[in-house]
Amino acid sequence: MRQPAMTAAEVKDYLIEVFPQTAHLFEIDEIAPMRARVRMLTGPEHLRPGGTVSGPTLFTLADCAFYVVTLAMIGRVALTVTTNCSINFMRKPAPGALVCEARILKLGKLLSVGDATIWSEGASEPAAHAALTYAIPPRRGENVG
Amino acid sequence: MRQPAMTAAEVKDYLIEVFPQTAHLFEIDEIAPMRARVRMLTGPEHLRPGGTVSGPTLFTLADCAFYVVTLAMIGRVALTVTTNCSINFMRKPAPGALVCEARILKLGKLLSVGDATIWSEGASEPAAHAALTYAIPPRRGENVG
Amino acid sequence: MRQPAMTAAEVKDYLIEVFPQTAHLFEIDEIAPMRARVRMLTGPEHLRPGGTVSGPTLFTLADCAFYVVTLAMIGRVALTVTTNCSINFMRKPAPGALVCEARILKLGKLLSVGDATIWSEGASEPAAHAALTYAIPPRRGENVG
Amino acid sequence: MRQPAMTAAEVKDYLIEVFPQTAHLFEIDEIAPMRARVRMLTGPEHLRPGGTVSGPTLFTLADCAFYVVTLAMIGRVALTVTTNCSINFMRKPAPGALVCEARILKLGKLLSVGDATIWSEGASEPAAHAALTYAIPPRRGENVG
Repeated sequence: MRQPAMTAAEVKDYLIEVFPQTAHLFEIDEIAPMRARVRMLTGPEHLRPGGTVSGPTLFTLADCAFYVVTLAMIGRVALTVTTNCSINFMRKPAPGALVCEARILKLGKLLSVGDATIWSEGASEPAAHAALTYAIPPRRGENVG
Repeated sequence: MRQPAMTAAEVKDYLIEVFPQTAHLFEIDEIAPMRARVRMLTGPEHLRPGGTVSGPTLFTLADCAFYVVTLAMIGRVALTVTTNCSINFMRKPAPGALVCEARILKLGKLLSVGDATIWSEGASEPAAHAALTYAIPPRRGENVG
Repeated sequence: MRQPAMTAAEVKDYLIEVFPQTAHLFEIDEIAPMRARVRMLTGPEHLRPGGTVSGPTLFTLADCAFYVVTLAMIGRVALTVTTNCSINFMRKPAPGALVCEARILKLGKLLSVGDATIWSEGASEPAAHAALTYAIPPRRGENVG
Repeated sequence: MRQPAMTAAEVKDYLIEVFPQTAHLFEIDEIAPMRARVRMLTGPEHLRPGGTVSGPTLFTLADCAFYVVTLAMIGRVALTVTTNCSINFMRKPAPGALVCEARILKLGKLLSVGDATIWSEGASEPAAHAALTYAIPPRRGENVG
C-alpha cells in the first residue's frame, strides 16, 4: 500500500501555515497509509441549543480530517479543495473532545475519495459519518489525459 | 400551498435567542411558502488559502438557511436538527456577502427535505448546492404512527 | 448562456446506440440550455412491495436524465460517468410514467454538477431529488491544467 | 452489541417473498451484528458502454445490502424504505460477481443509518461506496415520542 508522504508533525506545521486561524483547534493523533486520526477540542462557540456540538462543527472536523489524510498522502498541495461532502448526523455529541477517523478509498491523480467517522472522545458509537471527495489540482505542465 | 407560520423578523428574533453567538452573521431577506433567502456577511475568519470563502462557511450558511425555512413553516421548534447534508462545492466565492436560496421539497411530520443554493452576492452562477434533511422532533403526546 | 450541442432527437439516437437494452424506457421531452426533461415508462419490473416504484428505478431515471442534459451540452462523449449521486426519496410514486427535470449548475471541463427532480406524471409534489456529479473524460491531447 | 434477529437464510427467504423478480440476483454470504455481506451476480443487462457494470447496478446492490443488514437486525418489516443514499463511484468494475459489505452505524427506532462498500470479487480496492439511511415505519400503536 502507498505510504504517506508527510508525518503528523509535518502536516500539523502545514495546517498552522495555511490555516493560522483554526489550526490550533486540531491535533493529529496518527497518520497511517490512507488513514488519519484527528482530534478537535470544542469550546462554547461550537455548541448549539441543548448544549450539544453543532452540525457545522462536525462538518468542519470531517472536512479537516479528510484534508489531513489527503495531504499526508500527496504532500503539500494547499489548493486541494472539497468538491463534495455528504454527512449523516447520528447522535448528538456532548461538549468536549471529538475524534475523527478519516480514510481514503480511492486516491487518483485528480480526486481523493473516502470517508470520515466522528466520535465523542471515549464514546463507542459514532456521532457522525461523512463521505468526502477532494479535487487535487493538476501540477503545472502535467497532462491529465 | 401551505403558508409560513412565522415572518422573517420573527425567525430572526428566534435565531438571536437560540444562536446568540452566530445569529448576527445572518440576515433573512425573504420568507415565502416553502422558500427562504438568507444572506451571510463573511469576514477574514471565513477565508481559506487563496482568499476564498471556506467550505465550512458555505456549509454553515446552507444549514442555517434550511433551518430558517423549516422554522418559518413549522414555527418555534428549536431542537429541529440536521440529519443529512450533501453539499457540492462548485465555484470559489470571493470574500463578501453570500446569498442562499433554501427551498423545502417535502415537509412531513418528522422530516423536512429540500435544498439550498449559494451565490456570491451579484454573481450569476452558484458557488455551492446542498441537499438537506432536517428531523422534526415529535410533539409531546403526538402519535407519529 | 451556453447553448446545447445536440437536439433531443440526436440525444435519443445516441442513447439507443450506447444503451440498446434500456434506451426504450426513456423519452426526452425537452432539451434547453443547461436543462432537460426526461420521461420514464415504468412496468411491473420497476415496482417494490406495496406497489410503488422502486428506489433503484428512481435512481436510474435521475442518473439517465443528468446524463442526457450533460451530453446535450457537451456532445457525444459516451464515457462520461457518474462520480457521485446523493438522492433523497420523499414520496412513493404510483405505477405509471415518471417525469424528471435535470439541470446543470456547473459545467466545467472535467465535471458536470447539478440536480434532478422526479415527479409521478401529473403530481404536483416531487417523489425524489438527486444531486449529481458526472466526470467528463479529457479529450486526447488536451491539457487540463 | 445488539444481535441479529434473522439468519442469512431467513433474510434470503424473505427477499424471495417480497422481491420475487430480483431476489435471485443476490446471495447473502454473511450476517453479523450490524453487518452483512451480500454478493450480486451481474449479467449483460448490467453493463454499460465500455463493458463495465453500470452505476444503477451498483446502487441496486448497495441499497439491497443495506436493506439486508437492516432487516436482519430488526426482523420482517417489509415497508422499510430508503430515504437517502449518497454514492461515490470510484473504479469501474469488470463484469462478474460483486461483493458488498454493509454496516449499520446507528440503529434507531425510526432510522437505520450506515454505509455499504462494493468490490469486484477478488479485487483489493473498492469500486463504490455509499452512505445510506432507511426509514423504519412505526409499529401500530407505538408512540415514537
